[in-house]
Amino acid sequence: MSQKWVYLFDEIDQAEEKAGSWDGVRSLLGGKGANLAEMTRIGVPVPPGFTVTTEACNAYFDAGKKLPEGLWDQVLEAMKEVEKQSGKKFGDPSDPLLVSCRSGARVSMPGMMDTVLNIGLNPETLKSIIKLTDNERFALDAYRRLIQMFGDIVKGMDRHAFERILDEYKTKTEGGQDVDLTANMLKDVVKDFKALYKKELGEAFPDDPYEQMRQAIAAVFDSWFGAPATTYRNVEGLAHDLGTAVNVVTMVFGNMGKDSGTGVAFTRNPATGEEEVYGEYLLNAQGEDVVAGIRTPSPIADMAEDMPEQHREFLRICDLLEQHYRDVQDVEFTVERGKLWMLQTRTGKRTAAAAAKIAVDMVNEGLITKEEALMRVAPEQVNQFLHPRFDPDEVEKARKAGKLLATGLNASPGAATGVAIFDADTAAERGKSGEAVILIRPETNPDDIHGMEQARGVLTQHGGMTSHAAVVARGWGKPCVAGCEAIKIDLDARMFSVDDKEIQEGELVSIDGATGEVFTGILPTIEASFEEERELITLLGWADEVRRLGVWTNADYPKDAVKGRAFGAEGIGLCRTEHMFFEEERRPIVVKMIMAENDEERQACLDKLLPFQREDFEGIFRAMSGLPVIIRLIDPPMHEFLPPREELIEEVARLRFSKDDPDELAEKENMLQVVNSMWEVNPMMGLRGCRAGIMYKGLTEMQVHAIFEAACNMTKEGIKVHPEIMIPLTSHVNELKLEREKLERVAKDVMAEKGIEVTYKFGTMIEIPRAAITANEIAEYADFFSFGTNDLTQMTYGVSRDDAEGKFLLDYVERGILPENPFEVVDRDGVGVLMKMTVEKGRSVKPDLEIGICGEHGGEPSSVEFCHMIGLNYVSCSPFRVPVARLAAAHAVLKE
Amino acid sequence: MSQKWVYLFDEIDQAEEKAGSWDGVRSLLGGKGANLAEMTRIGVPVPPGFTVTTEACNAYFDAGKKLPEGLWDQVLEAMKEVEKQSGKKFGDPSDPLLVSCRSGARVSMPGMMDTVLNIGLNPETLKSIIKLTDNERFALDAYRRLIQMFGDIVKGMDRHAFERILDEYKTKTEGGQDVDLTANMLKDVVKDFKALYKKELGEAFPDDPYEQMRQAIAAVFDSWFGAPATTYRNVEGLAHDLGTAVNVVTMVFGNMGKDSGTGVAFTRNPATGEEEVYGEYLLNAQGEDVVAGIRTPSPIADMAEDMPEQHREFLRICDLLEQHYRDVQDVEFTVERGKLWMLQTRTGKRTAAAAAKIAVDMVNEGLITKEEALMRVAPEQVNQFLHPRFDPDEVEKARKAGKLLATGLNASPGAATGVAIFDADTAAERGKSGEAVILIRPETNPDDIHGMEQARGVLTQHGGMTSHAAVVARGWGKPCVAGCEAIKIDLDARMFSVDDKEIQEGELVSIDGATGEVFTGILPTIEASFEEERELITLLGWADEVRRLGVWTNADYPKDAVKGRAFGAEGIGLCRTEHMFFEEERRPIVVKMIMAENDEERQACLDKLLPFQREDFEGIFRAMSGLPVIIRLIDPPMHEFLPPREELIEEVARLRFSKDDPDELAEKENMLQVVNSMWEVNPMMGLRGCRAGIMYKGLTEMQVHAIFEAACNMTKEGIKVHPEIMIPLTSHVNELKLEREKLERVAKDVMAEKGIEVTYKFGTMIEIPRAAITANEIAEYADFFSFGTNDLTQMTYGVSRDDAEGKFLLDYVERGILPENPFEVVDRDGVGVLMKMTVEKGRSVKPDLEIGICGEHGGEPSSVEFCHMIGLNYVSCSPFRVPVARLAAAHAVLKE
Repeated sequence: MSQKWVYLFDEIDQAEEKAGSWDGVRSLLGGKGANLAEMTRIGVPVPPGFTVTTEACNAYFDAGKKLPEGLWDQVLEAMKEVEKQSGKKFGDPSDPLLVSCRSGARVSMPGMMDTVLNIGLNPETLKSIIKLTDNERFALDAYRRLIQMFGDIVKGMDRHAFERILDEYKTKTEGGQDVDLTANMLKDVVKDFKALYKKELGEAFPDDPYEQMRQAIAAVFDSWFGAPATTYRNVEGLAHDLGTAVNVVTMVFGNMGKDSGTGVAFTRNPATGEEEVYGEYLLNAQGEDVVAGIRTPSPIADMAEDMPEQHREFLRICDLLEQHYRDVQDVEFTVERGKLWMLQTRTGKRTAAAAAKIAVDMVNEGLITKEEALMRVAPEQVNQFLHPRFDPDEVEKARKAGKLLATGLNASPGAATGVAIFDADTAAERGKSGEAVILIRPETNPDDIHGMEQARGVLTQHGGMTSHAAVVARGWGKPCVAGCEAIKIDLDARMFSVDDKEIQEGELVSIDGATGEVFTGILPTIEASFEEERELITLLGWADEVRRLGVWTNADYPKDAVKGRAFGAEGIGLCRTEHMFFEEERRPIVVKMIMAENDEERQACLDKLLPFQREDFEGIFRAMSGLPVIIRLIDPPMHEFLPPREELIEEVARLRFSKDDPDELAEKENMLQVVNSMWEVNPMMGLRGCRAGIMYKGLTEMQVHAIFEAACNMTKEGIKVHPEIMIPLTSHVNELKLEREKLERVAKDVMAEKGIEVTYKFGTMIEIPRAAITANEIAEYADFFSFGTNDLTQMTYGVSRDDAEGKFLLDYVERGILPENPFEVVDRDGVGVLMKMTVEKGRSVKPDLEIGICGEHGGEPSSVEFCHMIGLNYVSCSPFRVPVARLAAAHAVLKE
Repeated sequence: MSQKWVYLFDEIDQAEEKAGSWDGVRSLLGGKGANLAEMTRIGVPVPPGFTVTTEACNAYFDAGKKLPEGLWDQVLEAMKEVEKQSGKKFGDPSDPLLVSCRSGARVSMPGMMDTVLNIGLNPETLKSIIKLTDNERFALDAYRRLIQMFGDIVKGMDRHAFERILDEYKTKTEGGQDVDLTANMLKDVVKDFKALYKKELGEAFPDDPYEQMRQAIAAVFDSWFGAPATTYRNVEGLAHDLGTAVNVVTMVFGNMGKDSGTGVAFTRNPATGEEEVYGEYLLNAQGEDVVAGIRTPSPIADMAEDMPEQHREFLRICDLLEQHYRDVQDVEFTVERGKLWMLQTRTGKRTAAAAAKIAVDMVNEGLITKEEALMRVAPEQVNQFLHPRFDPDEVEKARKAGKLLATGLNASPGAATGVAIFDADTAAERGKSGEAVILIRPETNPDDIHGMEQARGVLTQHGGMTSHAAVVARGWGKPCVAGCEAIKIDLDARMFSVDDKEIQEGELVSIDGATGEVFTGILPTIEASFEEERELITLLGWADEVRRLGVWTNADYPKDAVKGRAFGAEGIGLCRTEHMFFEEERRPIVVKMIMAENDEERQACLDKLLPFQREDFEGIFRAMSGLPVIIRLIDPPMHEFLPPREELIEEVARLRFSKDDPDELAEKENMLQVVNSMWEVNPMMGLRGCRAGIMYKGLTEMQVHAIFEAACNMTKEGIKVHPEIMIPLTSHVNELKLEREKLERVAKDVMAEKGIEVTYKFGTMIEIPRAAITANEIAEYADFFSFGTNDLTQMTYGVSRDDAEGKFLLDYVERGILPENPFEVVDRDGVGVLMKMTVEKGRSVKPDLEIGICGEHGGEPSSVEFCHMIGLNYVSCSPFRVPVARLAAAHAVLKE
């Protein structure tokens, strides 16, 4: 006996027996087929039919595109059963059965694969249908659709050739639409279609219903390796050997009069999660009419009036399906002459807000467990809650109105609208006065911070997902579109242009950091408020019960610390101390410190900086009372605090030529000389991090001094401080030893002076491959490790993030050379190996070594999962990512 | 019974029994003590004495600076034996025995530790010595030395206080020297010394000889942890728990008349290796007189006339010692009243030339094996053979004459003299016309290549050991002093200054790339000729028999290939293709290619470059017929071929202001725009290596095309070609896959067209940590790996070599933060772990994977040893390092 290739919808028990599980059934019958069979099993009315398995599809390709042995016999057998169930006969001129052939893979591939409708129509059956429906126009329209679909999909004809014929007839009508075609016209259309078919293919359109079906099944198989489906699987990373099933389903028609109709619905509101069947339907219409948008559908509620019985039945089925599948369903249905048929059910896609509400509601309804509820919300969705967003309808309208200017990188989510401003000072000034400002720059640097702070959003022409603008904006939860190369900024003219459009300073623009889109004019936004998201808060509470990974936040300022804590952060994983150096009143002191010609001069500057730093730390400690705070000593190269070299070269050249101002020239020349002497070819791998602490005498001491003074002062005020001091950029254990000695000496002195004992930890970033490789040596001198996966990725990959994203990295991802951008998702095979090695080597000498991550990856769900897998203690991310990380950490446990 | 702390010189058998080996004896008795005892054993006349062990030293410190139990009794016992052997008595007023206490650690620590002479003198014994020697002045001088040394070394008094007293008396004499002091004056000196001693210490200088000895022994122990010795051990990486021995030796005096004398000698000429006892001696003098340089010593040969019997005896002993130790000895001797005493023997230090000659001679003499001979020459010494060097005597003279201007980094060995020239064009021009030129630049870049090529040597103000100047110069075997920050170059004035000295263009300078020294004027050089170094060639032939590691060379040009092959290279491990792009006639095409606005323009340029490249490769293949040639596809960032950004900014600023030349301004602005768009923050980790090959369409194809055309053409000429094509900067296996596909397609096409089949390999550099970590994936698509340890070190350490060396790395090494410069010696704990991982993972999927190294480290002995240890197939280095690597590879085997 040959293999079983065909399962009737009521043979799901047999399919289950063979496949072993519901998951197996989905693989065997495809998603659509499995659900049609499942609905049949639980008594939901489904038009009779059967499924040809994915195995048959694979066998078809294995045999060089031949239907496998026994398949056709089984199809014929199944059709007999379908005829019995429907009471009609396939190809019977008196009461003909019509069917559709629909593709249905394991995973939904929307629009990628093919369907042929109305199979079984021929001149004989057509007559019968006309008689039975008393609707000649309807029957002819169905027939011409069959010829058109068959020609296009099964025979590979040019679909436009059919469209042209149709258009010709439409121009003859008054309305010019499909619906305006009369029955007589359609008769001619059918004739012309058949003539075209014969001309193109050299054979007549087949009248034999079984011949139609056989070819349609093969064509659906073929569409599995069609270009759209193949590309889709490549992009989505789906296997090519899953195959598609073919569902042969009895046609039912919703356009058979006032007692017919068709519709689509969600069992709950997919936008809000409200418990109400939500959808739309059309009386006396086919499914395509709903999609085509020619008639405006009515809300499902209206059905209660039009056909109350069927409406009640429909609501009952929706409830049944939801109870059965234990999740929101997205269904399609048709009423044919008073009889309700369900044509499809699948899990309903929903917005973040709906996902959270539905998950929590279903737990309260006893339908699912808390763990299931957690898995129903994707961590990345949580992000949507925390940022203002544009009203989707308004975005659609703006697009249609041609207001979309360009699309850049979606660097920091959220929507913002304001006046275009091209420099940080103006942005700061106008922003402070309450005006909504969008700061637009070729790229940003630390000099622009004050402008970014006061802007509603930031737009840059250059720079990638980890450019300065992107990182700072994400840290602040401020919308940012980066690397929008399509806009050409002219700073002198204070404008930018896109093709022939120009936006002057002061004009209104809107940016969507979640999509990277830039619009002209104002788009209305919907505000977010974490505190009011009760369901999300409930859900995150459950996540906290489940997860083992701690979630900390990166915060340089007290206000960020407060925000992170409100979002549920259990500590500060990274407080950068260099931002403090950039602030207006401190910068000149920092510059003087760098340019100091001897130790005394430098120390004098450091002494002036100390009170500022102390104050900074006091603020942070106060905000985080009772929780750990990791403070990282200064990291960037010192020349970042000096004016840019290129600017100085230009100015000196100008001043030399003009001879206007010898004093300024001398000053600039002096500055340029210092900048030149500090200049580095590859600053990222130059004199920065602990190297600066080691080479600039007194720098580490000053920072440590400030930290401990602040800690002692706060302790006196009753604040519970838990400082952890972190050394950046360690590559050799001896660097750590040296810095640790300094720290311990200063800490002891300050605590003795203040008469207060503060418990603290000393640790290091692991961001250099060598530190990972020698983690066992380094662990001897560290109480904690914190992965700086941004830099670790840069060094491990040999890729400078500042340069690479625009120049080749995104292109690499697009071309599939890299599976994903390693600066977004931890590269488990490369960087991940070093991380695992670090954990193993570090804990081999210090089993309770505290290990966390404070790079950008700390808030990215797949990376959070990886951190959980390799046994980190916590992840630390920007405040706005904290809720995402809390849920991702719970997912990591539940996926185990 | 307490431990044996004291060994008489004739108790070496006991020492050997305890220590188990000669090495153990050296540890127990120290180098000096072990050799004194060994000489005693083989019948060489050594003044009677004994050694207090290093164990006693350690016990002394363990007990808190107390002589260990039993030690003193053993000393007293030993002294009785010494008295017996010498026939004198310690402290005996009639025939007093005098002794010295000399330190002697396991490893020689020259000048770091202390010695006290003339122990046993007091007012009583002094009289007796005067009577016995009939030389009051001599005896008094010995006594004042004892007091002075004792006060200084044992009691820690200020040595200058004694010197001041001595100086006072010297001013009263005519000559003003030590020797001018009369016996009467010395009597007063002794009196004043004693008074000073009592005043400072509150106690009289001890008269008791045993008290003197006890304190002297303790003082020698103490000197082990004195600052100089401790620092020395830290620098040299020696253990602190070795301890020092103390040798108590009967004093013998060479200044007792015409039948006395003293001298030092080598058993063979340490400069040339000639088989002749080589040294100097002084009649009627003490050892210190030889060292002090007051009297000019005579050659040892003269001794044959002065005291023929002793001379014969001395030569016999020298021969005996050399036969016994099977190596050249460096000895000290004294003749006291006709009796020859040997005071010290140790292995003689020698020049490279001498080392090779001695090693080969001794094999021929049957004294040592070939393997021993190989170990007698340090690989680094081989380097000295291959470069011209300054005559050491002339260098000494120049130093004394104040001609030493400054010292920079010894970037590329060899000596060069010529006129100072400050730009590459002039250097090229004047160099071509036959003038000896030294090119002096702030730093060099590829634009300076033609000038460097014609210069005798290169001197730069900035840049480290791996700066452009250093790397290129080493590659060519051209002397280079880099990073000589003391010279301030003024390019406009065409001069440099050091402090108040100025060197104008055209003045003569000399640079020593082996020491980093820069002199004014001409210093005579000694030329090198590898072919004439017969002993070296013999030795390297033996090395080839022993080594398992292949030695290949890095060569970009046929002339380098020829040189490397002459030095014994077995293949080319790295032929860079980018230097070819920099050459004069090609550069404009390259610039056009980079600036091309579309594929057609770019392809047209590539088509023009192809014949040049093909010709290059033909030359290389011809030079290396029969041997493998690894050609690396283009590696540096494309913007290196464009003018420097800073220069353009300056020019554009100037041109904008002057408004002189709108056309030039437009051109420069255009160029600046391109340069800006290509500009990278960290170019080393930017768009370079295979990334450029992937992003610049047609580039890889052109290079591969040229390689295969060249290979086919040469094959037709009967040349045996073995091309191996290497992809730089792979970080993900997919990059390699992509490039491999291109290569195979082009190779197939070209070979089909030419009708010739060429066997080739395809492989990749391993220079990115991620490539090392994923070596198993990468090995699937590579026939060979080649470590680029320069870049691998940069990425693994997170250190940019261009920036770090001057800014912190050398400082780190100096301060002991890093054990050594990882760009010179492979960092085994960090980079080495990745290398080992690469070999293991790579061979796990491809057991016969060919793996080599082509970074700078390939010619550094310790790194070569490491490459041998982890199982590489070959090392590849610059031609001049090939002999070094051959010997180092043999050492690696012999050390196993």
